[in-house]
Amino acid sequence: MHRTYSMRQSRAPTASQVESPPPPISTTKSGRWLGKGGIGHAFRKNAAGAFGPDLAKKLSQLVKMEKNAMRSMELVARERMEVAQQLSIWGEACDEDVSDVTDKLGVLIYEIGELEDMFVDRYDQYRVTIKSIRNIEASVQPSRDRKQKITDEIAKLKYKDPNSPRIVVLEQELVRAEAESLVAEAQLSNITREKVKAAFQYQFDALREHSEKVAIVAGYGKHLLDLIDDTPVTPGETRHAYDGYDASKAIIQDCEDALTNWVSSKAVVKSSLSQRSRTLSQRHRSNLNKNREGVDLSGQDQPLAGDRDSWLPADQHPNYEDGDDGVSTIEGELRGREEEREPITV
Amino acid sequence: MHRTYSMRQSRAPTASQVESPPPPISTTKSGRWLGKGGIGHAFRKNAAGAFGPDLAKKLSQLVKMEKNAMRSMELVARERMEVAQQLSIWGEACDEDVSDVTDKLGVLIYEIGELEDMFVDRYDQYRVTIKSIRNIEASVQPSRDRKQKITDEIAKLKYKDPNSPRIVVLEQELVRAEAESLVAEAQLSNITREKVKAAFQYQFDALREHSEKVAIVAGYGKHLLDLIDDTPVTPGETRHAYDGYDASKAIIQDCEDALTNWVSSKAVVKSSLSQRSRTLSQRHRSNLNKNREGVDLSGQDQPLAGDRDSWLPADQHPNYEDGDDGVSTIEGELRGREEEREPITV
Repeated sequence: MHRTYSMRQSRAPTASQVESPPPPISTTKSGRWLGKGGIGHAFRKNAAGAFGPDLAKKLSQLVKMEKNAMRSMELVARERMEVAQQLSIWGEACDEDVSDVTDKLGVLIYEIGELEDMFVDRYDQYRVTIKSIRNIEASVQPSRDRKQKITDEIAKLKYKDPNSPRIVVLEQELVRAEAESLVAEAQLSNITREKVKAAFQYQFDALREHSEKVAIVAGYGKHLLDLIDDTPVTPGETRHAYDGYDASKAIIQDCEDALTNWVSSKAVVKSSLSQRSRTLSQRHRSNLNKNREGVDLSGQDQPLAGDRDSWLPADQHPNYEDGDDGVSTIEGELRGREEEREPITV
Repeated sequence: MHRTYSMRQSRAPTASQVESPPPPISTTKSGRWLGKGGIGHAFRKNAAGAFGPDLAKKLSQLVKMEKNAMRSMELVARERMEVAQQLSIWGEACDEDVSDVTDKLGVLIYEIGELEDMFVDRYDQYRVTIKSIRNIEASVQPSRDRKQKITDEIAKLKYKDPNSPRIVVLEQELVRAEAESLVAEAQLSNITREKVKAAFQYQFDALREHSEKVAIVAGYGKHLLDLIDDTPVTPGETRHAYDGYDASKAIIQDCEDALTNWVSSKAVVKSSLSQRSRTLSQRHRSNLNKNREGVDLSGQDQPLAGDRDSWLPADQHPNYEDGDDGVSTIEGELRGREEEREPITV
């Protein structure tokens, strides 16, 4: 492609890749039998969330939409590389200086395409992390359903046959279901937070690295343009022989070095907080810590050993009541322990 | 969409827009009757360069490929905005802190989509500038063709009927055609250089602004993530009430301010040249200037007044000869004046 130089010949890993090794190649890059998006995108978008448990539907849709976005980003990367090649091809027929500079510009633009392609791989890591929240959401749904189903059944029996011995059996079942549900909801809460943070850290780090690198390439592109002699000639006048080959090569080399040595600790675009934001964020954090010290719940619950047998059944807890737990967990919160209620008999 | 805040409500122009007003909306954004690319892309790519004069074919193809690339970038922008909305929708059902933060993350990601959309408009300016080179290339072709045709005709006549009086007429015609061609080639050389520089200045400036802004947004995104309380809770434990609404709003406000105030003179990503590149570039520039002083051609040709009548016919120039001018201009260079040749008689 590029007649004189390509940044992509047997390249050693960049400093940034050594610092944080690149992720495996994006999962969107294989199995593309429906061509360049279009039909595939529409299908994915519409089908997402049509199956699977309620709780995970919105997130399933998000995951599918991200896949579409990634495919489109890949398309941009590919088309940018094609554009770079065509620019070189056009330049070949021009005068020496225009030809050399457009060829080198082609190298830089091809490099931007490569950077975009690498960004897609890192974006996929974000998407996979979001997917793991979807999975935990999907796995929590059955335990919510089970609890709800038993609660409904007890209510129905109490109305139709208040003395049925099955009520006792069902109430014991409910106690077990609630214990399971408490664990599931805590897992959901913990994993959602952990993964949301991890996923967006990943996305934003990748975005920042990608953006700064593209800005670096654009800067070197402007240096290349200086090599074109744009003083107008009069008809019949000949331009002087071009002697910028070494200079253009050196600029590309500088650009390559700058990209190779980029590490996130050297990132120069700062997003600093205003005094107001800093104060508010600090207040939020210190409130969190204060609350945590004030209401220490760590002694109240034993750490979860991974199996639910190490747990007390919910009915043996001091303030246990089934009440409208169904409602409060539907809102995504666990209020069972906070309210003062009458204990029920088993 | 975003429940609490959007950056895009009645926004004043940013500092960067005031510095250099935004271009008109991209020409790729209208007349999209073939849907989301795919077929349109393939058609454009294959049809480009199939018509029109030879000289402009490669550049026509480039212009069409850039249109494809722009359409794909638009698609990414649109899909990113959709993703942002879906993220907000999913977050609504989560706990207060996750809900607030994902909503605000949605605002930031939507903003990235908007930035991408604005970038497409500026990229179109680059494309339109490249298109103007294609137009001059296309307009130079007929004058090359005419000169070639007359030269061929004279050669044929000289072989078949060396005493034909038509030869004299044709030779006079050739002289006029060559004068026209000299002007056309000089125009091509001057305009190509001017426009290549302008086009890529535009592209690289747009890229740099876009990249730095995206990096800024990514940085504020990371600040938002700090508001999520990711200390794990044990089953049944309740999280404390969330008090980060003001902090998250202030972070978005900071981000908006940073984007509004960005101007290219404040760009922080530097692409500095190494000593070697700087030396080579300077040598190139000083050579250019030296050559320009050494061989001053400004007295040799009168400035072009816009009509070709103010010009001497080519045959009245001291070293005029038709020779293999056809070949040298096909290579895109004007060598006619440099070589010592025998004058021909009119």
